[in-house]
Amino acid sequence: MNGLDEESLAPQTFLYGCTLEAGKEVTFSPEDHELEHQLDLKLACVDPSTKDELNLVEVEGQDAEGQKIKAALVSLKPSTLPSVCLGGFTITPPAVFRLKAGSGPIHLSGQHLVMMETEQSFDEDD
Amino acid sequence: MNGLDEESLAPQTFLYGCTLEAGKEVTFSPEDHELEHQLDLKLACVDPSTKDELNLVEVEGQDAEGQKIKAALVSLKPSTLPSVCLGGFTITPPAVFRLKAGSGPIHLSGQHLVMMETEQSFDEDD
Amino acid sequence: MNGLDEESLAPQTFLYGCTLEAGKEVTFSPEDHELEHQLDLKLACVDPSTKDELNLVEVEGQDAEGQKIKAALVSLKPSTLPSVCLGGFTITPPAVFRLKAGSGPIHLSGQHLVMMETEQSFDEDD
Amino acid sequence: MNGLDEESLAPQTFLYGCTLEAGKEVTFSPEDHELEHQLDLKLACVDPSTKDELNLVEVEGQDAEGQKIKAALVSLKPSTLPSVCLGGFTITPPAVFRLKAGSGPIHLSGQHLVMMETEQSFDEDD
Amino acid sequence: MNGLDEESLAPQTFLYGCTLEAGKEVTFSPEDHELEHQLDLKLACVDPSTKDELNLVEVEGQDAEGQKIKAALVSLKPSTLPSVCLGGFTITPPAVFRLKAGSGPIHLSGQHLVMMETEQSFDEDD
Repeated sequence: MNGLDEESLAPQTFLYGCTLEAGKEVTFSPEDHELEHQLDLKLACVDPSTKDELNLVEVEGQDAEGQKIKAALVSLKPSTLPSVCLGGFTITPPAVFRLKAGSGPIHLSGQHLVMMETEQSFDEDD
Repeated sequence: MNGLDEESLAPQTFLYGCTLEAGKEVTFSPEDHELEHQLDLKLACVDPSTKDELNLVEVEGQDAEGQKIKAALVSLKPSTLPSVCLGGFTITPPAVFRLKAGSGPIHLSGQHLVMMETEQSFDEDD
Repeated sequence: MNGLDEESLAPQTFLYGCTLEAGKEVTFSPEDHELEHQLDLKLACVDPSTKDELNLVEVEGQDAEGQKIKAALVSLKPSTLPSVCLGGFTITPPAVFRLKAGSGPIHLSGQHLVMMETEQSFDEDD
Repeated sequence: MNGLDEESLAPQTFLYGCTLEAGKEVTFSPEDHELEHQLDLKLACVDPSTKDELNLVEVEGQDAEGQKIKAALVSLKPSTLPSVCLGGFTITPPAVFRLKAGSGPIHLSGQHLVMMETEQSFDEDD
Repeated sequence: MNGLDEESLAPQTFLYGCTLEAGKEVTFSPEDHELEHQLDLKLACVDPSTKDELNLVEVEGQDAEGQKIKAALVSLKPSTLPSVCLGGFTITPPAVFRLKAGSGPIHLSGQHLVMMETEQSFDEDD
């Protein structure tokens, strides 16, 4: 437990931001064996350079059966809805973000939470 | 309790996503007798292929009297409101999602929470 | 305490949905002397049949002085804003929902929470 | 402590609503020496009688240095954005709400939380 | 621990508000060695004087690797989306807010949380 006291089990909060463009996917996959990482997505927004078309953000992650799945997250269009609150969408790594439609750029932002790993072993696959 | 320590009672978070179309309903009903499942709905959004009409998402679940009910959840229209934050709408299985109006596709996404079952017995029907 | 263990003090979550129309108010007032009820309002949305006018939802409940008050909650218009996230607005019964303006239909949805009653006696009126 | 048990330290939730108009500010300042009050603002919305102009809601409260400050909270316009979710903006009294621009009426609603006062003394001014 | 009892470890909530304009960045960096500060951003909105162009708010902070990063937070345009709920975006100081596009003014508001510092030492840089 490396000298951590009880308080330090609370997650630490860092800033996260990335930008999606056509053909440019972003991976969230921190390499770490002692700490647990989570992404708490807060906002998606367009850029002044984003073309006026529907931009659909897709995230690829793992479902409860341990399978890789893709979920369509949010649609933005500069002239209709330039920003959307994502309501604290928790992403467990590894995850990949990409544009399923539109050419962006679309900005994603949120909080990168880092906490002490807790042993959890009740996988469905056991 | 299968060797789980206190920390492991915290829910594990997986990615959830589904797509609704006219005549294509989606059921959330994980088969599991040892683990408890919940869906934390975060976002609904349109697709580039969604026709410009009002799409109304309906969820069918169970009310506090143990009766099956349908609730109209969210309305989206590509030219007016292509995405809506659902604010972490907690769905207890079994539940069914479908389009009550419009032909979609409408994408739903959120977090699938899996936790140890807790014995709860204060049903109204007792 | 009816054999409930500590875990069962956590609230149970059920689906809630109602539809408001001109002249049709909806009451949330579960009759229960052993359990505590709360409504966690999540979303308001229009219907394909809703006329294109401003629909204003009003809730009537109790303020901190124990007086009955009316609060204007949310305004929706099909061509401008067909859905609004209510952010988990907690309603303590008894409460009444109605349209203060517009003829609807407007759909409200959320979570009906049921938990063990906790003795609370620090009323302002004491 | 007036016979309160541990459970009663949890806040009690009441309904809050007010309406702002040009020249009509609203004060949130419950007079109470034994209980602690907080406002959890949830929604702002326009009225059918609100003129089609930008209405900017301002709140006056206290910053972390103990100074009185004004913060511009939310902008609404009937034809563009008739309702905004405020995401549970916690207001510690005393606070004053007013329109910094526009003539309203603008409705604010939320939850008035009442809890037992906890002795807190780590003021920056000490 | 300066005579603080257990309850006083709970954060105290103050009002925060700032206004961004072209060339006018705002720093959130409270000087304090005994207390911990956080900003819980709640809303961004335009002013009646904001030009009708896309205004993009950028925040500069620290990522989980200890590097300085810039994240594009939210886009607002008076005629399209005059206000956006930021969903309680937690900012750990030091942070800088500025307009990456547009000339504003854009108002940011939220809660400034002050709490007792907890010793946390599991930095990635160790």
